[in-house]
Amino acid sequence: MIVVKIGGAVGTQLDNLVSDISGRKDVLIVHGGSDEMNKLSEQLGRPPRFVTSPSGHESRVTDGPTLDLLRMTYSGLVNKRFVEMLRKGGVNAIGLSGIDGGLLQGKRKGSVRYLEEGRVKVLHDDNTGTVERVNTDLLELLLSGGYVPVLTIPIEAEDHGSLNADADRVAAAVAGAVKAEALVLLTNKPGLLKDPEDPTSLVRKVPRSELDAAMELARGRMKKKVLAAREALEQGVPKVVISSANSDRPLTRAMSGEGTVLC
Amino acid sequence: MIVVKIGGAVGTQLDNLVSDISGRKDVLIVHGGSDEMNKLSEQLGRPPRFVTSPSGHESRVTDGPTLDLLRMTYSGLVNKRFVEMLRKGGVNAIGLSGIDGGLLQGKRKGSVRYLEEGRVKVLHDDNTGTVERVNTDLLELLLSGGYVPVLTIPIEAEDHGSLNADADRVAAAVAGAVKAEALVLLTNKPGLLKDPEDPTSLVRKVPRSELDAAMELARGRMKKKVLAAREALEQGVPKVVISSANSDRPLTRAMSGEGTVLC
Repeated sequence: MIVVKIGGAVGTQLDNLVSDISGRKDVLIVHGGSDEMNKLSEQLGRPPRFVTSPSGHESRVTDGPTLDLLRMTYSGLVNKRFVEMLRKGGVNAIGLSGIDGGLLQGKRKGSVRYLEEGRVKVLHDDNTGTVERVNTDLLELLLSGGYVPVLTIPIEAEDHGSLNADADRVAAAVAGAVKAEALVLLTNKPGLLKDPEDPTSLVRKVPRSELDAAMELARGRMKKKVLAAREALEQGVPKVVISSANSDRPLTRAMSGEGTVLC
Repeated sequence: MIVVKIGGAVGTQLDNLVSDISGRKDVLIVHGGSDEMNKLSEQLGRPPRFVTSPSGHESRVTDGPTLDLLRMTYSGLVNKRFVEMLRKGGVNAIGLSGIDGGLLQGKRKGSVRYLEEGRVKVLHDDNTGTVERVNTDLLELLLSGGYVPVLTIPIEAEDHGSLNADADRVAAAVAGAVKAEALVLLTNKPGLLKDPEDPTSLVRKVPRSELDAAMELARGRMKKKVLAAREALEQGVPKVVISSANSDRPLTRAMSGEGTVLC
């Protein structure tokens, strides 16, 4: 089994992936939706708000109304567009959020520490969390029926409330739970770059012993991908590849080692 | 198995249903979302457009952007709120749209005839349809795993595109396909009324032989419910109940004959 994470934009990236996995039944897909969510938030007059943690990770402030926007974009708009595109491409896709059948259960962070003007502040009652349990029975049930699960947020809290979670890290938790042979994180960069502006500065390989250094190197969204890679490796996934979604056959290329291989 | 159709509003109606079905595994839920969809359409500056057919049925004009709004509200906002509420109430709910795993497959209408200023006009390329096949294998797979499916639109066209469909009629098709013992259509009225303004004018029973007369009597949204009831009966469902969602234990009451029983 291979777990593939892709962003939330419908377009060439998705088309490439669809034709690459057409007919395959050994893949699980996790997708994002951040850009669509930001767009809808703006359209509805609720501009998105982000905070940056002391360790440099950016995350979306998720109050109640933001959860509704998340349901609309991730579970609704993006998930169902993806399922439609995949099914048109011959993949027997079934779309689920983490709350469906208690698929992805996690822990509410409670409070989020963040930096503002150089000082550490605390955000209370934020609806964000991380996956701690995956309902692998449900995944196996669907896979046994020949379906390709297409997973997204929200995830389910202990009290059955809905939580926002980072999709790369969700993919890592899923890969660990299903004992995937690989986690492939597709993105709009060729992989982890020494210089984010220079696509030729690709880091081809990151052994476990150099994960800290890779984390230092990563900037912006790439930081979450390296963190997700670390979590997947810690959960026993033998290989993580951060690779470009902007090529034909992106999964095949990633599995052949194109991109940054963390192992 | 009982198929229950409920509207799309979160509130007392849903609370009543949740506590009534808590612990049950012999129910399948289908929900609407029209009001939430209209609200979002207005907020995004795309007021909803409806047409009325020569036979008096109202339907939403569904172009491409409307399909996106439908994905957002029905499959996203409403479905995931419902799943969350049900799971909080002890129901092992799993939410799916008709395109997931090809669950609800139908036929694109192609063109829709409608009345405008007394003349019959034709709307082309409308993304609406009716369910013709239900993937009962998928429903049985989920039921065998102890999950309660919570179903909504869109449904899947022959070309794997997404289609709008009437949720009452979707529920009828599902009830027929799973050979349900009953279809319960919960609504904000006590049932079919002789006089829509007089809640004491309830029609208690409609035998098959009087379906045409019941159809004549029905006004507005109730027309679709009587049509759905007819379709369910024609597909072998022995009993349909149109009943109030605004009471405690609405399913128990409906099954005991409260409301309009069509059989």
